[in-house]
Amino acid sequence: MGRPRTPLLDRRRIGAAALRLADEKGTLSIPALAKALGVAPSALYHHVSGRDEIISLMRQELALTTGGGEDWSQPWEQALESWARSYLSTFAAHPGAVPLLATAPLTEPFMHAMYEKVAELLLTAGFAESEIMPLITALESFILGSALDLVAPPVMLSDVARETAPHLSAVLDRTATGQSRAAYAFDLGLRALLTGFRDLLT
Amino acid sequence: MGRPRTPLLDRRRIGAAALRLADEKGTLSIPALAKALGVAPSALYHHVSGRDEIISLMRQELALTTGGGEDWSQPWEQALESWARSYLSTFAAHPGAVPLLATAPLTEPFMHAMYEKVAELLLTAGFAESEIMPLITALESFILGSALDLVAPPVMLSDVARETAPHLSAVLDRTATGQSRAAYAFDLGLRALLTGFRDLLT
Repeated sequence: MGRPRTPLLDRRRIGAAALRLADEKGTLSIPALAKALGVAPSALYHHVSGRDEIISLMRQELALTTGGGEDWSQPWEQALESWARSYLSTFAAHPGAVPLLATAPLTEPFMHAMYEKVAELLLTAGFAESEIMPLITALESFILGSALDLVAPPVMLSDVARETAPHLSAVLDRTATGQSRAAYAFDLGLRALLTGFRDLLT
Repeated sequence: MGRPRTPLLDRRRIGAAALRLADEKGTLSIPALAKALGVAPSALYHHVSGRDEIISLMRQELALTTGGGEDWSQPWEQALESWARSYLSTFAAHPGAVPLLATAPLTEPFMHAMYEKVAELLLTAGFAESEIMPLITALESFILGSALDLVAPPVMLSDVARETAPHLSAVLDRTATGQSRAAYAFDLGLRALLTGFRDLLT
């Protein structure tokens, strides 16, 4: 897993600083990261080969500071739900990093080990091999989108005119606001997805 | 809808330039936008009150260049699916703007008009008033996450070791690659979500 001549601390510092930068700026550039770390960009290249490796270090930092401890021996629906919830809380803590983390190839053995668990869970549950990665991907897309929604304002639709939007107004009158808005949408969507997944088994 | 003394062209130029900037940089700042438009930041403030209004102009540009033409008289599942697909293609064309567009309050009357259609569709289908916004939000989260996945590499998991990840390897052997990977995940996830939504009606 990497370049043993580099002390772990430095690679951890790079990953942690890159996460902070992505959180603040919603983006990542080598010059900005070097500046945040107080080094020259060339010094950064002594530790990482480039952008993909930095994203990898960000994932490693997330894995070290959160997650793990899933009980994969539960029934698949419970195990998948608990994985989804821990995934959501990890990403909701770093919404600015979501687009980066979602679009960089997953080459890390510790990420493969996590997907191995999910793949085994869904194979054992009886899902078709060809459907398992698409199902995982669909669930992840829902989680990543929900992580962005969790940091959106408590009220997303405002100043709705009752005369021109009567149905929407009626619905909004009965819609939770505050932090529970996004959490309830996640709960309902997760339940719907799992129901739909279960339907594929029959 | 806005400040009539400002010619439409200028506001359209601002929205279009902000979209391009978000696509390129994954972020948006007033100084960078002013630079892209070749004006001073103070000149930009003659046309927009700030960041939220720029995001609103980005939405307007997207609405003008795509979308519309939904057939809301179809059965709810078809109508919702067709809305979701047109939404996906709009956002997949501007992945860098996804986090901005997903987290800024929706104050625009033309966006309210769209949600009015969806709210009416789901009310008529028989969904509980209190569940409709959460269902729409869950579907949107799935769509936004899927838009990010559509711009991810055709192969996301690579260099997986068969010895340590046998189930994952077996699954990957049967997984589509290329552009169809993300499209298939979206299809399967959308079908699962709609199945789960239908289940709420019974």
